[in-house]
Amino acid sequence: MVSKKMLSEYARLAVKIGVNVQKGQPLLINGPVEAFEFIRECVKVAYEAGASEVWVDYRDNNLQRMSFEHVETETLKEIPSWAIDRIKYRIDKKYCVLHVISDDPDLLEGIDSQKVFEVQMANMKASNQFQYYTMNNIGQWSIVAYPNRKWAKKVFPELSEDEAYDRLWDAIMSTSRVSEDGDVTKAWDEHNREVKVHSEKLNEFNFKSLHFENSLGTDLKVGLIRNHIWEGGADKTQGGVTFNPNIPTEEVFTMPDCYHIDGTVVSTKPLSYNGKLIDEFKLTFKDGKVIEYSAKTNEDVLKNMLDTDDGSRSLGEVALISYDSPISNSNILFYNTLFDENASCHLALGKCYPTNVKGGSDMTSEELHKLGGNDSMIHVDFMFGSRDMSVTGTTYDDKEVVVFADGNFVF
Amino acid sequence: MVSKKMLSEYARLAVKIGVNVQKGQPLLINGPVEAFEFIRECVKVAYEAGASEVWVDYRDNNLQRMSFEHVETETLKEIPSWAIDRIKYRIDKKYCVLHVISDDPDLLEGIDSQKVFEVQMANMKASNQFQYYTMNNIGQWSIVAYPNRKWAKKVFPELSEDEAYDRLWDAIMSTSRVSEDGDVTKAWDEHNREVKVHSEKLNEFNFKSLHFENSLGTDLKVGLIRNHIWEGGADKTQGGVTFNPNIPTEEVFTMPDCYHIDGTVVSTKPLSYNGKLIDEFKLTFKDGKVIEYSAKTNEDVLKNMLDTDDGSRSLGEVALISYDSPISNSNILFYNTLFDENASCHLALGKCYPTNVKGGSDMTSEELHKLGGNDSMIHVDFMFGSRDMSVTGTTYDDKEVVVFADGNFVF
Repeated sequence: MVSKKMLSEYARLAVKIGVNVQKGQPLLINGPVEAFEFIRECVKVAYEAGASEVWVDYRDNNLQRMSFEHVETETLKEIPSWAIDRIKYRIDKKYCVLHVISDDPDLLEGIDSQKVFEVQMANMKASNQFQYYTMNNIGQWSIVAYPNRKWAKKVFPELSEDEAYDRLWDAIMSTSRVSEDGDVTKAWDEHNREVKVHSEKLNEFNFKSLHFENSLGTDLKVGLIRNHIWEGGADKTQGGVTFNPNIPTEEVFTMPDCYHIDGTVVSTKPLSYNGKLIDEFKLTFKDGKVIEYSAKTNEDVLKNMLDTDDGSRSLGEVALISYDSPISNSNILFYNTLFDENASCHLALGKCYPTNVKGGSDMTSEELHKLGGNDSMIHVDFMFGSRDMSVTGTTYDDKEVVVFADGNFVF
Repeated sequence: MVSKKMLSEYARLAVKIGVNVQKGQPLLINGPVEAFEFIRECVKVAYEAGASEVWVDYRDNNLQRMSFEHVETETLKEIPSWAIDRIKYRIDKKYCVLHVISDDPDLLEGIDSQKVFEVQMANMKASNQFQYYTMNNIGQWSIVAYPNRKWAKKVFPELSEDEAYDRLWDAIMSTSRVSEDGDVTKAWDEHNREVKVHSEKLNEFNFKSLHFENSLGTDLKVGLIRNHIWEGGADKTQGGVTFNPNIPTEEVFTMPDCYHIDGTVVSTKPLSYNGKLIDEFKLTFKDGKVIEYSAKTNEDVLKNMLDTDDGSRSLGEVALISYDSPISNSNILFYNTLFDENASCHLALGKCYPTNVKGGSDMTSEELHKLGGNDSMIHVDFMFGSRDMSVTGTTYDDKEVVVFADGNFVF
């Protein structure tokens, strides 16, 4: 467990720098019951910042697992209309949202994948509007992590449960730039400036496509949408409020052209999806769609993911992170995308962020899709960066520019 | 903290004996975040008993206090329509309800009473249908307690917070008949049989009224509704499912005639209402209505309570408990009605239980009210039993029968 001081500093990071709740704005916090003391701190910070109201939705991984074990699929799939109205209400009231995640990477191991898939589909359909609300930066949102013992033991299997839990706390704090004596606001200001150097440079190049290659078998050409924007670090809502959607974050990312992705990509880290770990998987794309796939573990979960809808076989995000980056150098495999995606170049299957193209937030999903912006109910990042990754950009006048050599940015 | 074994025995008591969830029935649990381990146990027991689905609504006293400190009254009073639809949904689905209470008796001390009153009014109006659902025994419901440190320290101010917490656990376990080696099912079967002896005897007498007197100034005549029923211990839903609404419980209770209550009643224990303690209070009734009142502390809270609606100045329940009863003999003042009402004769301001009169569950509130069954949004028990309480019953043929002498049942 971290000190009270660290915990309240972390709450300040989550609420002031992460979601950046505004005076008079309501805040929704989703969080695990075990984190109630941290969440109390977050609520306190939010009221001090002038939040008009704070609502907390608590959840419990254990109850979720039990419900999958005992409740019939049809019952789990039934989303009552009040739950949909609640989502609409929160959108209308312009809530900002803080997600406190605390996943167990193997939470649903042993549960029928088809059951999990069907229930997740029902939930995604119900929360479609909320996905639109956040992915279009209408309201601020942020994701921070809170450790739990099962997750900790997965990350540090050689340690006792208590030691592992403390180590995971340390890892979360250090990657999130929270320290006993440091100034978290200053640390995040500096960090966001550093990230911006890469995104600005990439925006100047205005590449038509990127070519990824490494010795593991990745050989993938990803077209970029015309007028794409590289983003990274702090983001802005449509109304101009700065927020940090991911804590921690190291990536710069943009929008692929979902009709022009060809070749093969090989994963380099396991992916926890719907409570199960998909590991050692490979995807082959043709004209923007996955036409072949395989995985060493939980291939059926990968299959279900790819079969979600029309857009789940194409890409909505491409992100660059140097192999030599702080989270990567910690040599910790977190089994959690919030962290692992910041240690590795990654792609996301599914929906694009409309903010990654000029004017994207003003387009309908159909308009965006026509231009090459992928649409889907899912948005699932997976990691494929490696020590020997090379990335070459091609400009609109067919010049080739080396972006990555030996796993790292060359500029 | 109690042992894991005790905790799981307590969960079994709450779910199997308290709310008695049926095979194929959904269960709603309201509980405090601090109790998440106990609630997990309850959910486990519920699924083992065949519950179709278990939903948990977590709450946090600290967040409630903060919202009263920081959120405007108008915002707190606004109940979104989805919240009302959620109540309807749960009634339609025939949820049974387990309330895990863990109050801080002074939670809202220092908060403007008018603000608390207005917010509570709005909440009561919104949950009116649910009150009807439970008070008419349409679905099973039960209340159990979970300790917290502030409550514990209030009960045992001379102990350290940790010691007080452990002592409160012990007190809850022993009054609820949960022990390391005992059989909780057997203990409750026996206890319910004992309680029934008194209620059956009182039903035979079929009193027209009861006269309460003691040296503290109580001199109150409470008419009883014609065809009243004394109840106590286990109860039954309209569909015939047995459940125990209160854990613990020692009382037998019935329905006053809300037009025939006259005289003065003096409280003998403080009453925690809306997060504040009303203490040393006195009520004078005429023709069934409170016409005078006073309190040494928080008189404004008492005033607001009495002013809630038309029925909040009359009585909905009269309950008899021997002064020489287990909870009373523990000499612990719990500052919590779930416990304190079982140590003392008590009355409830507000709505009656329709099950306390023959055919009551089939009557509308208006029909019931005509006969003398009080109607209100509130139902607030308060304690007035004492060591020297005498209770005399008057039968329909004007015979007087001594029911209590020196604080105890004479039969």
